[in-house]
Amino acid sequence: MSGADILERLTKTLENRKNASPEDSYVARLYAGAPEVILKKIGEEAAEILLAAKDGDKLQIVRETADLWFHCLVMLSYYGMTADDVLQELRRREGVSGLTEKEQRKKGKD
Amino acid sequence: MSGADILERLTKTLENRKNASPEDSYVARLYAGAPEVILKKIGEEAAEILLAAKDGDKLQIVRETADLWFHCLVMLSYYGMTADDVLQELRRREGVSGLTEKEQRKKGKD
Amino acid sequence: MSGADILERLTKTLENRKNASPEDSYVARLYAGAPEVILKKIGEEAAEILLAAKDGDKLQIVRETADLWFHCLVMLSYYGMTADDVLQELRRREGVSGLTEKEQRKKGKD
Amino acid sequence: MSGADILERLTKTLENRKNASPEDSYVARLYAGAPEVILKKIGEEAAEILLAAKDGDKLQIVRETADLWFHCLVMLSYYGMTADDVLQELRRREGVSGLTEKEQRKKGKD
Repeated sequence: MSGADILERLTKTLENRKNASPEDSYVARLYAGAPEVILKKIGEEAAEILLAAKDGDKLQIVRETADLWFHCLVMLSYYGMTADDVLQELRRREGVSGLTEKEQRKKGKD
Repeated sequence: MSGADILERLTKTLENRKNASPEDSYVARLYAGAPEVILKKIGEEAAEILLAAKDGDKLQIVRETADLWFHCLVMLSYYGMTADDVLQELRRREGVSGLTEKEQRKKGKD
Repeated sequence: MSGADILERLTKTLENRKNASPEDSYVARLYAGAPEVILKKIGEEAAEILLAAKDGDKLQIVRETADLWFHCLVMLSYYGMTADDVLQELRRREGVSGLTEKEQRKKGKD
Repeated sequence: MSGADILERLTKTLENRKNASPEDSYVARLYAGAPEVILKKIGEEAAEILLAAKDGDKLQIVRETADLWFHCLVMLSYYGMTADDVLQELRRREGVSGLTEKEQRKKGKD
């Protein structure tokens, strides 16, 4: 996935923003009002995805999902976690559900 | 980021689920009721992140964020897009805001 | 407003449900899982209003709004409050904003 | 319920705001961006109820619920409906479930 490195870079950037002034940085303002301000943004962005999706507006869906994931990264960072914790949880579930294994066996049969 | 490959694998798995029976597969059931069923789940999972976060329950925050991102992947897939579209949008913004560049310059000074 | 007495009756009914068994009563189940279960429902119903509204489905909009308000009544009841607290807050704001007074003055001029 | 008349007054006020200028009136601005702007506010206010409730902040719960219901009134008005449609739906359900009747019978027995 060509863009996956961005999650790692954003994680580092967010960490650096913890020392920034709220006047200079949007992310620093989010931290300053945390967790409420960050959580409200997550609620807002989820609502905006619903509206964009019902419009079938693909470009807007991508933008709103990017907004939602970005604010999730800020929220994770605030609580001392990163995107990697979420990705590892997704990988753990994949193992449990065996979806990939089933998929591979199916391919093997064909 | 050690877990980033999972997004690519999930993307492929979701694509394969489009041909599965709703009786056999949770994801196929989501597609069958799309987009409403998927979008309701996004709303629900966002609400659950807020509750987990207010509890300061780190494990639960990670689980709910994994749930939210997973259902975002299903939503993106339903509309013919992938996580990579979102990651590229995040990368595009990073370029525009120049956050990384500033970061690098700062490091250069030190 | 012909239906306004329903809020008062529901308030009493909800109060009575506090002693009911979760097996017999939906509301008792909400109380048993409170506040999380109630709050998740508020998040869900809000999402469903958005979807119904984007469909322009008037009947569904009314149903989802009734669902949302009902679960708000349960939430208020759980925290020892009633619809009347909310209605009085709305009345207080009306006074502060002077919207009604402006309205009346406008009519006086005509 | 001492405050119930406020719903009727707000309904009339909202109707009058439909002819107001977005520059002069908050409600007129909501109508001007409808339905998206109104629906986003419903999503936001629901999220804020969750946060206030998790804090157990009664005053804030009442304020956020008032905000949510107010924006529901604006949404209903935009789609040509009123609070009364919602209250009548709640009354209809009460009849169907027979909750009140059961309550009364129970009292009769005691």
